Amino acid sequence: MKKVRREVVWEGTLFDVVREEWGDTVRELAEHEGSVAIVAIDRDGRLVLTRQFREAVRESLLELPAGALDEGESPLAAARRELQEETGLHGGSWRKLRTIHPSPGFLREPVSIFLAEDLEEGESNPDEDEELEVVRLTPAELEAELEGLEDAKTLVGALLYLREGR
Amino acid sequence: MKKVRREVVWEGTLFDVVREEWGDTVRELAEHEGSVAIVAIDRDGRLVLTRQFREAVRESLLELPAGALDEGESPLAAARRELQEETGLHGGSWRKLRTIHPSPGFLREPVSIFLAEDLEEGESNPDEDEELEVVRLTPAELEAELEGLEDAKTLVGALLYLREGR
Repeated sequence: MKKVRREVVWEGTLFDVVREEWGDTVRELAEHEGSVAIVAIDRDGRLVLTRQFREAVRESLLELPAGALDEGESPLAAARRELQEETGLHGGSWRKLRTIHPSPGFLREPVSIFLAEDLEEGESNPDEDEELEVVRLTPAELEAELEGLEDAKTLVGALLYLREGR
Repeated sequence: MKKVRREVVWEGTLFDVVREEWGDTVRELAEHEGSVAIVAIDRDGRLVLTRQFREAVRESLLELPAGALDEGESPLAAARRELQEETGLHGGSWRKLRTIHPSPGFLREPVSIFLAEDLEEGESNPDEDEELEVVRLTPAELEAELEGLEDAKTLVGALLYLREGR
């Protein structure tokens, strides 16, 4: 099956909509530059999360620190930048956990999830339109909060961490 | 924070793009009717998955049986319909595992994940544009395949199942 034609049908700030013909199959896809999310463990062994209001889901969500790639930026560089902006945490040792696809029926947005450990504390510097609360959970507290997690990347990161990361 | 204005800026088949002003915050959001996914366990205790080519991610993915809500359809009705269409499995006992948000920064698509057990075998009836391979994995085989899973809802469902479902 090969792609024969592609057209941008709507252009946005964070994502575009493209219409692609793959052989006889026509798909309308939301296309995003890609994102990063970080399973960040502080020096007390707590998972560092953020809580913020998400207009798309009309409620506040507890999430892994995360954000979109800047143009041309590598996933690791974006992950280090986003983690420092949102929580102040920097340095440490990093490894890639995996890349996930949030909604592969119509969304092109690879999300790279990293595990970051031995992090140093520092000053956060969130974007102007972000009102973030930073929440730190011990593994036992995370187990207790699992039921309430609704964000896909956060569930994947938290469940992988509880399973393999410790 | 209250929503003050909303405008559909692009209208598609599977999702629309809306521009919303929440106070001073302007968001461009992809808005989808909502989806369902099923952690389906056959009578031999195997998890039933599907593999199909996904144009959005340009590769074949192993996923939970899943699909979009028809207009006005309840998540449970949609889940029973999709499971039967894609795998032939029907009947059985069902419970809701949780609702997840695939990409809450810009995507409004609640995904309801169900656990279905004691299912009866039957004839599948996939949509014309779906070329689906059905794959059944024992819990041990699922453990071995985890590393290769890339779809967010499937990782969430599989990890919750391995953790709590058995």
